[in-house]
Amino acid sequence: MATFGDIGVAAGINILFSVAFLVAFAILRLQPINDRVYFPKWYLKGLRSSPTHTGSFVSKFVNLDWRSYVRFLNWVPDALRMPEPELIDHAGLDSAVYLRIYLLGLKIFVPVALLSWAILVPVNWTNNTLEKSLATDKVQYSDIDKLSISNVPYGSLRFWTHIVMAYAFTFWTCYTLRKEYATVTTMRLHFLASERRRPDQFTVLVRNVPPDPDESVSELVEHFFLVNHPDHYLTHQVVINANKLAKLVKEKKSKQNWLDYYQIKYSRNQSQRPVTKTGFLGLWGETVDAIDYQTAEIERLSKEIAEERERMKTDPKCIMPAAFVSFRTRWGAAVCAQTQQSRNPTLWLTEWASEPRDVYWDNLAIPYVSLSIRRLVIAVAFFFLTFFFMIPVTIVQSLANIEGIEKRAPFLKPIIEIPFIKSVIQGFLPGIALKIFLIVLPTILMMMAKFEGFLSISSLERRAAMRYYIFNFVNVFLVSVIAGTAFQQLDSFLHQSANEIPKTIGVAIPMKATFFITYVMVDGWAGVAGEILRLKPLIFFHLKNFFLVKTEKDREEAMDPGSIGFNTGEPQIQLYFLLGLVYAVVTPVFIPFILVFFALAYVVFRHQIINVYNQEYESAAAFWPDVHGRIISALVFSQLILMGLMSTKGAAQSTPFLIASSFDNLVPYFLQRPL
Amino acid sequence: MATFGDIGVAAGINILFSVAFLVAFAILRLQPINDRVYFPKWYLKGLRSSPTHTGSFVSKFVNLDWRSYVRFLNWVPDALRMPEPELIDHAGLDSAVYLRIYLLGLKIFVPVALLSWAILVPVNWTNNTLEKSLATDKVQYSDIDKLSISNVPYGSLRFWTHIVMAYAFTFWTCYTLRKEYATVTTMRLHFLASERRRPDQFTVLVRNVPPDPDESVSELVEHFFLVNHPDHYLTHQVVINANKLAKLVKEKKSKQNWLDYYQIKYSRNQSQRPVTKTGFLGLWGETVDAIDYQTAEIERLSKEIAEERERMKTDPKCIMPAAFVSFRTRWGAAVCAQTQQSRNPTLWLTEWASEPRDVYWDNLAIPYVSLSIRRLVIAVAFFFLTFFFMIPVTIVQSLANIEGIEKRAPFLKPIIEIPFIKSVIQGFLPGIALKIFLIVLPTILMMMAKFEGFLSISSLERRAAMRYYIFNFVNVFLVSVIAGTAFQQLDSFLHQSANEIPKTIGVAIPMKATFFITYVMVDGWAGVAGEILRLKPLIFFHLKNFFLVKTEKDREEAMDPGSIGFNTGEPQIQLYFLLGLVYAVVTPVFIPFILVFFALAYVVFRHQIINVYNQEYESAAAFWPDVHGRIISALVFSQLILMGLMSTKGAAQSTPFLIASSFDNLVPYFLQRPL
Repeated sequence: MATFGDIGVAAGINILFSVAFLVAFAILRLQPINDRVYFPKWYLKGLRSSPTHTGSFVSKFVNLDWRSYVRFLNWVPDALRMPEPELIDHAGLDSAVYLRIYLLGLKIFVPVALLSWAILVPVNWTNNTLEKSLATDKVQYSDIDKLSISNVPYGSLRFWTHIVMAYAFTFWTCYTLRKEYATVTTMRLHFLASERRRPDQFTVLVRNVPPDPDESVSELVEHFFLVNHPDHYLTHQVVINANKLAKLVKEKKSKQNWLDYYQIKYSRNQSQRPVTKTGFLGLWGETVDAIDYQTAEIERLSKEIAEERERMKTDPKCIMPAAFVSFRTRWGAAVCAQTQQSRNPTLWLTEWASEPRDVYWDNLAIPYVSLSIRRLVIAVAFFFLTFFFMIPVTIVQSLANIEGIEKRAPFLKPIIEIPFIKSVIQGFLPGIALKIFLIVLPTILMMMAKFEGFLSISSLERRAAMRYYIFNFVNVFLVSVIAGTAFQQLDSFLHQSANEIPKTIGVAIPMKATFFITYVMVDGWAGVAGEILRLKPLIFFHLKNFFLVKTEKDREEAMDPGSIGFNTGEPQIQLYFLLGLVYAVVTPVFIPFILVFFALAYVVFRHQIINVYNQEYESAAAFWPDVHGRIISALVFSQLILMGLMSTKGAAQSTPFLIASSFDNLVPYFLQRPL
Repeated sequence: MATFGDIGVAAGINILFSVAFLVAFAILRLQPINDRVYFPKWYLKGLRSSPTHTGSFVSKFVNLDWRSYVRFLNWVPDALRMPEPELIDHAGLDSAVYLRIYLLGLKIFVPVALLSWAILVPVNWTNNTLEKSLATDKVQYSDIDKLSISNVPYGSLRFWTHIVMAYAFTFWTCYTLRKEYATVTTMRLHFLASERRRPDQFTVLVRNVPPDPDESVSELVEHFFLVNHPDHYLTHQVVINANKLAKLVKEKKSKQNWLDYYQIKYSRNQSQRPVTKTGFLGLWGETVDAIDYQTAEIERLSKEIAEERERMKTDPKCIMPAAFVSFRTRWGAAVCAQTQQSRNPTLWLTEWASEPRDVYWDNLAIPYVSLSIRRLVIAVAFFFLTFFFMIPVTIVQSLANIEGIEKRAPFLKPIIEIPFIKSVIQGFLPGIALKIFLIVLPTILMMMAKFEGFLSISSLERRAAMRYYIFNFVNVFLVSVIAGTAFQQLDSFLHQSANEIPKTIGVAIPMKATFFITYVMVDGWAGVAGEILRLKPLIFFHLKNFFLVKTEKDREEAMDPGSIGFNTGEPQIQLYFLLGLVYAVVTPVFIPFILVFFALAYVVFRHQIINVYNQEYESAAAFWPDVHGRIISALVFSQLILMGLMSTKGAAQSTPFLIASSFDNLVPYFLQRPL
């Protein structure tokens, strides 16, 4: 039961951390040596090149201009200054709309915070239920609880205030969502209409081309579209399985890089021709002239690539029953993408081609029937992953103890038995399996989405984001609210009546406010501040720069600009929306912490999008319906919980009003237009 | 606890009734006077006209040819003889595919019956659980129960037989469904492709034409399609609110009918010109020459109709923001129907025009946003209708007692107080409110569907059928299985854990077998036999023929051929599918009763479709996905129940296998292709 003091201390620590991160960032970003870590976007755009100060050697690495340190917080107004149209031009619509999610958080929760502090806090504060129960039952309570709904006595008429507020918040959220949806739609349409001409605007992806004994896929596609779209068909490109070719091309690229490196080396020091070894990684084997060797290798690969290219064109195994079909007009492509092409609706499936960067090539050849089975398999797998992931993690944990390691690898025994190492291992091991699992979870979810057969990276990320949100909802939110693992909860929910579940959660919610406040500070505040510091890319860049970088191109590649990461970022924001909506009525004191998160994250991510992230694809904000839908579902969930809570507080007669309010939410769902 | 004897008696009575109906039908249909009742389809097709026997006056009404009575069961082979392609030609694809639902029942349940009688009945029979429990606990049991799963002892390994059988039935059902779906798809496509040219094949319905201050709807539609579909647009017809015109036309038709009548009357008896009175129903008012009067009236109406027609063309209030747009080619129409027309996806909504008979004109002008709200309102209303309909019924019942009537209508007191009438009312009244409700229920459901804004009669009927099925599922199936009203069940389900619900139902299922056997015999056997007798149309036709029919046209209209009535018929079949699938494993003795129903209904409805029903519209079997989906959901439900039952019989370890089997069912769901 945390008091204001406890919260204050926690806030202090986290603010300290956040400020430390921000200051470290502000200083590090000014050093020329870090320029490629903190401004990679500009390098990739070709608008910035490696700093070439004319000053001393030191100034090539360290910024000695003291005036720039005075203005070390300048990045904030810089980040905010770029107007939205320019931002769209600079980083794409996806990024600009992604930032609007944070803005939406502010738009929803600033009025909610004002209203709840003006009305709900006084209503809760001016009761003495908790004091009384302290006197009679020795119930522990905190100052936070005094501001929450817990302080209102059983059956009090004051609960009507909470219900009216729940209505107000619901209407405000729905109104904001609706307006935002309209704005995003307009932005999307404007963006699509004003894009420059690109081939994918004229192109349709055709899948499930039926096998034909007499014709090749290419001939079949051509004849089909010449017959069915004679006026608009232009050309087509059959999808070819080019994994081997891709491998060869990659190899050639690497050899080319080595050649460049040796040539630069030779040009600097012409007295000695560089040599290399032909064996593994150039570490052993015959010593040869490096430039000659790499040139020969490149020639060999060029020939192999040409051969492979020829082979692919003729080998029927490489040709997939899918094709990109281009049309003379956008109208023709639009018609083809939206209409059914054959009597059998599972053949000749057409859809808009994603832009080339966005296509997930590996999935283009999955047949229609297999898709539905894959979807089913993944649905089942995800269910087990969500509720039973603790089982393998626990097994690994039980294996990964000192005795286990000694048994399996007896030769390590002398090292492990050293007391210091032993205590480190003992303190470190139990958590590591879970940590590793949580780190690889987004990758697992992406793999699941890939297995399901989505055709574009954007849709893969959207699907992975949905799953990550559900996983977080069950394993972060529910597990924190109700003690016990997800599996235990599933079991208890199955044995509980449907009426009881909202009550169980509702009762636990006010008690967990302090926990979630701490969570927001650690994960939200410090986490976001850590994001801007980019510690991992910073270290990796300098390591690579030191050990691996040979040519300018290598340095280019050593930059790891990263990207927004919709599949991990959006579910995190959604968790805050959920927490905010749930606590808006129950514990209004929670809302300002959320507000700080949204404001900080908005500034930080705006900065990152402008200066760091490299946009991997452009889906023109196709993710917005997902964002919209998840906020609505959080709203409905918050009301269910409030109903459960109310019914245990002797205000059950008021719950029908909340049901009505829940139905209101469905209205924007229905009003929701496809993007 | 019914014994075989009880079932035998019930079966005997119902068979007697059914046979009586069939014999009555066989005799009545041979009478020329009933020809229009039992063969209206042929009259409507113009292939048959009123019997004009050259024999005696009596033979105009009664069939005196004794030979035809000998072959009185000939209608059965006659009904079965017509091959399917001819049936499609004669009665449309909807009717032919509707019959396939009964055939599907036979296809699924004949092998199920054979297997379950060969394997499950011996497995159940050779236990003595019930005998033992009779000895120890004095538990009552029946012979039916000896053949059911109840006779297998707790925790017996024999339950594996039931699980294997459940799997076998599931796979068989899924296989049959899949094959049938493919057949129906082929039939549908063949039907659509081989139809003669009709305007609706070239026509698209456009709704939500946005208002424009400068142009009329007609001009706007023309300009829009000339711009967007310049090569294919042909013409359009704006939808006009013509309710007043329809009324005038109907009035004119009635007057025309009277005129015909008087002219025939005059031509028969030229000595006296017929007269009529100008007042209400020709009962009072000034006496005038009938032929002159009607001619004048028709002239007046013709003029009014012309005026109304003119007014409608110009009055903007009559013009709805919807239009039928016709294209030069089917390709053009297909493209327009399947593509989005404007940036705002809620405007310029296009879809294939239904065939003219199928259009539900009243709903053409409902705006898009209102549609979603209507859907929500109806969803809520239907929920309350399903679970709380007993409340108003009970209120009406409590009002409709003798004292209530006497109080409200004291002048009736002397009549009511007569002992005989009093006892009739007392016996009759309590049930009447419920009966009336159940009779009007399909109408209520159709009204709900109309309110939701569907645009074709076929889709209205499909939606009403879905709701009727859910209503039957809750209020016939569940209410019969678990005692108590739907409302009480809802309450108990809400207070029960999700795990408990299948158990509660599963345990009750075997005990209700005899009840449902009786239900099948009454509702299925006797009901279907009653359908062929057409008692209501028979009586009404003769009443109308006697009192109202003046001209040949009137006689035409006095025929009430009726139609299949998808919205009531299909849910009834689905209830039998549900019962069959639920009892296939639990009480195999139930299946033959279902088989008799399917076989009898198939023959009867084939006869009715050939000879009686007048097809109201043709949707080309668009209802099949609904049929398919409901059978699948019945299958899943039957497995849930079996799992619940198994877990109470000490065979819980086997339920995971049933879960797997449940998932199997989802596969055909996913495989289900849109028609």
